[in-house]
Amino acid sequence: MSQLERTIVQTQKVRLSTPDQPFRFECGRELRHLEVAFETYGRLNAAADNAVYVVHALTGSAHAAFYNSPEEDRPGWWDGLIGPGKALDPDRYFIVCANLLGSCYGTTGPSSINPETGDIYGMDFPPITTRDMVKAQKLLLDYLGVKRLRLVLGGSLGGMITWQWLVDYPEFVEAAIPIAGTVQGSPWMIALNEVARQAIFNDPAWQDGWYRGQGPSAGLALARMIAMISYRSDRQFWQRFGRARVKPEPEHQLEFDNWFQIESYLHYQGHKLVKRFDARTYIYLTEAMDLHDVARGYSCLEEALDRIQAEVLVIGIDSDVLYYPHELKATVRTLQKLGKKAQYAEISSIYGHDAFLVEYEQLNHLVREFLEGRPRCAS
Amino acid sequence: MSQLERTIVQTQKVRLSTPDQPFRFECGRELRHLEVAFETYGRLNAAADNAVYVVHALTGSAHAAFYNSPEEDRPGWWDGLIGPGKALDPDRYFIVCANLLGSCYGTTGPSSINPETGDIYGMDFPPITTRDMVKAQKLLLDYLGVKRLRLVLGGSLGGMITWQWLVDYPEFVEAAIPIAGTVQGSPWMIALNEVARQAIFNDPAWQDGWYRGQGPSAGLALARMIAMISYRSDRQFWQRFGRARVKPEPEHQLEFDNWFQIESYLHYQGHKLVKRFDARTYIYLTEAMDLHDVARGYSCLEEALDRIQAEVLVIGIDSDVLYYPHELKATVRTLQKLGKKAQYAEISSIYGHDAFLVEYEQLNHLVREFLEGRPRCAS
Repeated sequence: MSQLERTIVQTQKVRLSTPDQPFRFECGRELRHLEVAFETYGRLNAAADNAVYVVHALTGSAHAAFYNSPEEDRPGWWDGLIGPGKALDPDRYFIVCANLLGSCYGTTGPSSINPETGDIYGMDFPPITTRDMVKAQKLLLDYLGVKRLRLVLGGSLGGMITWQWLVDYPEFVEAAIPIAGTVQGSPWMIALNEVARQAIFNDPAWQDGWYRGQGPSAGLALARMIAMISYRSDRQFWQRFGRARVKPEPEHQLEFDNWFQIESYLHYQGHKLVKRFDARTYIYLTEAMDLHDVARGYSCLEEALDRIQAEVLVIGIDSDVLYYPHELKATVRTLQKLGKKAQYAEISSIYGHDAFLVEYEQLNHLVREFLEGRPRCAS
Repeated sequence: MSQLERTIVQTQKVRLSTPDQPFRFECGRELRHLEVAFETYGRLNAAADNAVYVVHALTGSAHAAFYNSPEEDRPGWWDGLIGPGKALDPDRYFIVCANLLGSCYGTTGPSSINPETGDIYGMDFPPITTRDMVKAQKLLLDYLGVKRLRLVLGGSLGGMITWQWLVDYPEFVEAAIPIAGTVQGSPWMIALNEVARQAIFNDPAWQDGWYRGQGPSAGLALARMIAMISYRSDRQFWQRFGRARVKPEPEHQLEFDNWFQIESYLHYQGHKLVKRFDARTYIYLTEAMDLHDVARGYSCLEEALDRIQAEVLVIGIDSDVLYYPHELKATVRTLQKLGKKAQYAEISSIYGHDAFLVEYEQLNHLVREFLEGRPRCAS
């Protein structure tokens, strides 16, 4: 697409709490100045029943589709699914995506400036949960005049937050597609998050979270490198990198500093994140993932899931080694036992967890079929 | 077993190179003072045809079975497989296990003192390959009078070295059991090794490997934590830890510093390794794993594998997420196409890669059956 044909969208901002009406976190603490960055595509119809809420993942932003400027390198992170002729078509739906509470792309988070002190919130920012995130998103939708969501969907942390939507505002959601995301953070995911956090904590530049400026670059890069492995699969690494070296000549075969290309790739990915992300947000959002448990406050998981009124399509990825399909399938079985309209579908991919950002042909097909109401068998 | 009934064995040491007869590494460099720590169980018979060589994994030692002292906490690392009445019975076999070249349990490595300088070798130690390790093990077996190995076996890095034995000394090996170890380091394994190494490099106490004394404790602990995840499985973490917290009370549910038990466990494992292992050795041995490729020096993998004369039982673990069964099965198929006696068997376990240190009932059964020559179908 030439730059002339590009659709340009602007990220907007709205203040959702004030000192008079503070935002109350699940932990009981309050935020007097909550600002949320968001984008919308399409228009809310007169019946206000065509809204789709898109939830981004750990390092994502409100910029889900199109371009923010004619010069931008690449479109929004889910542009493959959102756009004219795609499953989420702005000609048909009013699509909303907001930067998560606690993130660093325009929504208030630990690295934002507290207007009352003129300094960052830092580690004094309250612990955030997926319940808090959904609450902030609901405030935004109220502000936008959305009465009910036709669909809420997202992958990874976005999938987890989608589940939280279903339990927290059951009457507000008509349909949902949690993709590669669970109803509770698994100990496996918690383990991977903890080693990533520890990589940041071990960096002397972390300074207990009170750094200003650059911060723990080496630690954040390593956190990303660790996470990147869990986002992919052994087969994808074989296919893309194999045992290729940066210096292929035979005389370099035994040199430690002659990286394998997979090593070079991981370092590249690590440094790329450092340029665009904040370490404090990484800590807060991974903690939110760990704390994620739709059953918190209920006597059991079934009681929480029994609140769901929406029709749910759970999408798993066959090669996902972070949110294994067997966990998602178990949730679908529970929902079906509870008499809910729940189906499971699986993306076939070598890309592992990241398939939800790659396999657009399958994703468009599944989302479109689901929205058009075609029956599907649960596996 | 009471301490009185314990069989006590001593780790022995032997010098395998001298300034006159230096040990030559694959890279061409030489080591004038190579000492190797080893243990033996049982006796070499008159025909010298009952020797079994046991290869340890990344952080293992020569101490494979029995006790080194009446007070020792636990027996050697593979005591479940080695001992009277077990598959590797010292009444029948002469069992040898040596600490790997480059390790830190008595064999010369980067943290050993160079007698010619009085200081550590440090990062001046030559890069080590699995070929070098096998060469040192062969020197030891020559010294012990072993003419041919009845069996060589090991798990993980030990499995990789077992493969190297088969290609480097085909006539010396009658049978082999590589367990959860590949003929080439996969890019997936390299990726996991690299993030573990980076955790060490990021520790300011690393000092480019020239630290004396304690060294990069936080970095080595994190390296171990990362590795531990890859040694287990999501199901085992669910089964053992679930979402249990260190402080179970409801009022602590949203506190960041109220660790999940899986986090506490990983930290415990990290600190435990720091007390017993050396960071330089961790770097050298993981690099050896990455460099591991039995095809190096041959025109292709098939040419290298075609050298194998031994009967081979390849054991995989169904839940292994570090050395996936599909890779091991592919190697068995290649061997079978080459007309080799190769079979595949799988351990069923939730323990993931670590199953080779856990599932002794299955292991004893498989090793015993193989040694007794019962036919088995390859899957």
